[in-house]
Amino acid sequence: MAEKGATPIISPRALNYVHNAVEAAKKAGEVSFCNLISYEFDSQSTGLQIIRRGFYETKLVEHKGLVDLVTETDKACEELIFSSLKQQYPDHKFIGEETTAACGVTELTDEPTWIVDPLDGTTNFVHGQLFTAIHGKGAFLNGKSIKASSQTELVKSLLATEAGTKRDKATLDASTNRINSLLFKVRSLRMSGSCALNLCGIACGRLDLFYEVGFGGPWDVAAGAVILTEAGGHVFDPTGKEFDITAQRVAASNGFLKDAFVDALKQSE
Amino acid sequence: MAEKGATPIISPRALNYVHNAVEAAKKAGEVSFCNLISYEFDSQSTGLQIIRRGFYETKLVEHKGLVDLVTETDKACEELIFSSLKQQYPDHKFIGEETTAACGVTELTDEPTWIVDPLDGTTNFVHGQLFTAIHGKGAFLNGKSIKASSQTELVKSLLATEAGTKRDKATLDASTNRINSLLFKVRSLRMSGSCALNLCGIACGRLDLFYEVGFGGPWDVAAGAVILTEAGGHVFDPTGKEFDITAQRVAASNGFLKDAFVDALKQSE
Repeated sequence: MAEKGATPIISPRALNYVHNAVEAAKKAGEVSFCNLISYEFDSQSTGLQIIRRGFYETKLVEHKGLVDLVTETDKACEELIFSSLKQQYPDHKFIGEETTAACGVTELTDEPTWIVDPLDGTTNFVHGQLFTAIHGKGAFLNGKSIKASSQTELVKSLLATEAGTKRDKATLDASTNRINSLLFKVRSLRMSGSCALNLCGIACGRLDLFYEVGFGGPWDVAAGAVILTEAGGHVFDPTGKEFDITAQRVAASNGFLKDAFVDALKQSE
Repeated sequence: MAEKGATPIISPRALNYVHNAVEAAKKAGEVSFCNLISYEFDSQSTGLQIIRRGFYETKLVEHKGLVDLVTETDKACEELIFSSLKQQYPDHKFIGEETTAACGVTELTDEPTWIVDPLDGTTNFVHGQLFTAIHGKGAFLNGKSIKASSQTELVKSLLATEAGTKRDKATLDASTNRINSLLFKVRSLRMSGSCALNLCGIACGRLDLFYEVGFGGPWDVAAGAVILTEAGGHVFDPTGKEFDITAQRVAASNGFLKDAFVDALKQSE
């Protein structure tokens, strides 16, 4: 985080990155976040005609099926964000869920790389809330500085996790046994359906703790990890070791509960 | 639900009820829902001075503790809603969480009764979304008609439940065993922290199924049950029997999944 009292100095290049990322996110927001919208192909036009449409006009959703609709929205948004950023930064690398799904594993190099997930949580839409952060310069919600909670007691803390997508008996039993063990120690549990939103939830103090094992890839955690760290929270491996963005394992806490949470996670195995 | 094609005829009295309920909710929304706000007592004034304040200005939250703050906001909002409605309907009866907490059990009679929970889910705030319904006349989100999903397959459905507040071993084990059993049969799980929001989530098609046993009281389900029924969904006892608003047990589904869900709930016991 930026030192207290010091005026944050942000390089023009970093500012430019953030400006363009926010612009791209807002453009994608026009078709996904802002209005809980669906979209439709305009077969008359050469490309994808994106149409704002009330989510609760359910005709199209029923016709196509919600999951397909969201997947297609996801693809359209990823394309839109990537093409918008590629115009600005033709030499940069890009990692996204849909691209990876189509082209296989994308290597994470030391080159400047944009990791983007336009619509995390296939059945969740968060509307009108823009979380941003710049490494070393703080975290923001709609432009206002945010910070993680000051909760110091595990028993009063609010934990988030997810049910995941695997449905084999070993995975499900391990997952619910862990939930059982942790519920004895925390105040309550939330499942929002979005890894990114859970990380941002801790960053703005709505949640205190989060863990998830077996999510999709770096695009689920990259932005949220920076946002939470900048908000004074911790992002780490569920064992307590250093966080590995490619490991599909994450735990997170406010600034005070990491050690107690790692202990509770160990006891829950 | 209103018959298709028929012009809904709403009695002036019912319209008046809804108008006043919405006005009261909006007033309370000024201090709770709309802006994720906190409030403070103005010790200089004779009463409660309610001040809109960014939730993310966390100074006050840290000072007072979020839970206390929300409880006090809850009380203030319930008072505001009740006093607003009592002016209009001095002979009606009122049931609310805070009033019940202060005065003991309130009997549910055949007299016109307002059941109000101004802020369901002590750690959740839903902002800018107003769900309404009139018995026999449909359900609405921000004035637009809503209906439950058309999902017919349990395995593709999205289930909501809550971790509850009891932390004894028998309750927790039963609760997580039930979750384990159901996770083999549904697509995924959500915990929003709000019984009312889960019911409204099914009403507008974001969720397909919900059950909760051991919640606070009728104020957690009264409005949501009408909204969901009007949206074409079902509200019933987790055993499949008729829903009892005073029983602190609820299950709910869209219009298609009730029987399959009741079977799954039975197998999960």
